[in-house]
Amino acid sequence: MKRTDTSEWPCTIAQSVNVLGDHWNLLIIRQACMGTRRFDDFQASLGIGRNILTGRLQLLIDEGLLTRTEYQPNPPRFEYRLTDKGRDVYPILAAMAAWGDKWLVGPEGSPLTLHHDSCGNDMHAVVGCSECGQPLHVRAVKARPGPGYPRGERI
Amino acid sequence: MKRTDTSEWPCTIAQSVNVLGDHWNLLIIRQACMGTRRFDDFQASLGIGRNILTGRLQLLIDEGLLTRTEYQPNPPRFEYRLTDKGRDVYPILAAMAAWGDKWLVGPEGSPLTLHHDSCGNDMHAVVGCSECGQPLHVRAVKARPGPGYPRGERI
Repeated sequence: MKRTDTSEWPCTIAQSVNVLGDHWNLLIIRQACMGTRRFDDFQASLGIGRNILTGRLQLLIDEGLLTRTEYQPNPPRFEYRLTDKGRDVYPILAAMAAWGDKWLVGPEGSPLTLHHDSCGNDMHAVVGCSECGQPLHVRAVKARPGPGYPRGERI
Repeated sequence: MKRTDTSEWPCTIAQSVNVLGDHWNLLIIRQACMGTRRFDDFQASLGIGRNILTGRLQLLIDEGLLTRTEYQPNPPRFEYRLTDKGRDVYPILAAMAAWGDKWLVGPEGSPLTLHHDSCGNDMHAVVGCSECGQPLHVRAVKARPGPGYPRGERI
């Protein structure tokens, strides 16, 4: 089934979702954030089919989230590394982890603890406002057409 | 193609991705955050096939992100509303919008402006640390097995 392309929708959420609204893409980025770089290691840690992994890695390269470099010439072997654009997805994954810890985790507690080296504390991600710093709640935020909104199109 | 179920993986990112790593699920939640409640309105605004929409709405109900209530008995018509769990996805969407504004948007500027009623400013989402409040960067965060991590399983 071909996926609907939302990359041209006049909404940056929809445009981002075009890349980030895919569980393999997110899990590959998660794995890369944890230090995985080689095809076989992605394959083993994710249990993903090799053809699917090949396709997703290429898509993430095409979208500028990963780079591919040869680390061995004969036979050729490659490493996949996050770009700045790819690394910038990490806060979104951390926000997903915080949502999961709140809503999906049972009394046994979270399977994952995140530690912030910068401040020395175990922590969770909080999504706040760039201006006042307070946590965002949907009812306090309004979406309006921005400067790049196509003229004449309804939101 | 059947999707890999990551809801039981010992990682809250993977567990969250099982629901949130799907572009239609995210776009339906986005639409619900903007006030859409009725099947035909979701269908029209997203241009999604009716059978796919039916399946995704049911999945989001099953996962506890939406509720369905009858607003008209004859013929029966239903409204879909976000639960607290569903509303809590909004900050993740706002973080995706901020990523998209930084990395996907051209010189014309963002198609979307978010306004924070609480402080009265246009803003973007920033994902920060719950303890020190500073923005999160992947290199400053370490993931460790948490209290709910299954014994004997490797991370």
